[in-house]
Amino acid sequence: MYNVPPLMNLIDAFAKLPGIGKKTAGRLAFFVLSISEEDANGFADAIVQAKKSIKLCVKCQALTDKELCSVCENEDRDPAVICVVEDSQDVMAFERTREYNGTYHVLGGLISPMDGITPDKIKIKELLERAAKDDTEEVIMATNPTVEGEATALYIAKLLKPFGIKVSRLAYGIPVGGDLEYADEITLLRALQGRNVLE
Amino acid sequence: MYNVPPLMNLIDAFAKLPGIGKKTAGRLAFFVLSISEEDANGFADAIVQAKKSIKLCVKCQALTDKELCSVCENEDRDPAVICVVEDSQDVMAFERTREYNGTYHVLGGLISPMDGITPDKIKIKELLERAAKDDTEEVIMATNPTVEGEATALYIAKLLKPFGIKVSRLAYGIPVGGDLEYADEITLLRALQGRNVLE
Repeated sequence: MYNVPPLMNLIDAFAKLPGIGKKTAGRLAFFVLSISEEDANGFADAIVQAKKSIKLCVKCQALTDKELCSVCENEDRDPAVICVVEDSQDVMAFERTREYNGTYHVLGGLISPMDGITPDKIKIKELLERAAKDDTEEVIMATNPTVEGEATALYIAKLLKPFGIKVSRLAYGIPVGGDLEYADEITLLRALQGRNVLE
Repeated sequence: MYNVPPLMNLIDAFAKLPGIGKKTAGRLAFFVLSISEEDANGFADAIVQAKKSIKLCVKCQALTDKELCSVCENEDRDPAVICVVEDSQDVMAFERTREYNGTYHVLGGLISPMDGITPDKIKIKELLERAAKDDTEEVIMATNPTVEGEATALYIAKLLKPFGIKVSRLAYGIPVGGDLEYADEITLLRALQGRNVLE
């Protein structure tokens, strides 16, 4: 048997990553061996540092390495508008639009009783506290268009009602650049129902 | 802008891996943040340790963490048969057959003048030294069935001729479980030319 323990350890470590099988893990491990020791150490350090320094923003619960995330600490952002998302990856997605100027609230999951995720397991309490304290005008429910995402959005909308805050939901419709032919019937129906007047 | 420097560093580090795009890198980085600090440190340590401890086997040039690789130091393996491969990943592939009982020689590349890889850049000299010293009976050329693999096999076969050693080449043919309908014409021709008598 050809056995190199440190190499096998590295392959196993890569194989634990989501979507990385044993063969890809092997390819990645051999790549790491082919780069300079400096680059390899830099890679290892990026993992350690990220894990060590990243925590949740005390206000919006997004990942950050400071007390407040870069959105919450930015005074140009409008704190009266809160976009509620499932995780920090969604924050990144919205930031890529370069148009949204409000703040976020990261739930850190979606209500899913089947998986044991009850409302108290995600950051709903923190959202309600913000809604009560700040001069919040609008909460945009931007959870994924899945069963869990819908349920979570409706649940939170109900809780926010007493506050008298406007609660909105992302528009459903055909994705830009998509092909009508391949759109599923529910998406197409929602696009039809949500049609806008051309002016 | 939502910016978390340690997170961006980690995403960039993953994105440098072969076959990992920016989106997959993001997914992997978020996964690392989701695992325990112990597991994350273990992952980082696997990278550092592999890079630090892995070197080339002094005999066959395969990757190893000791002086000799586990194949070369195994006295049950037949040193008279040397299987010449491009890299250590190929050694792993042959070991998975669980049948080959000879030793290996890892070239660390294939002759490719277009890419500046001349014969002196790969471990051919070391192979000739082994062939001259040891009681080598057979050298199996097991380079990839590509233009560079063929050229390298033929080049080395020529150099080994004066030693009076049997030099063989892996059989070409249809892959087991493959479909004749989808086999390319060259593979099919080689399979036909290399046909064996059924006994």
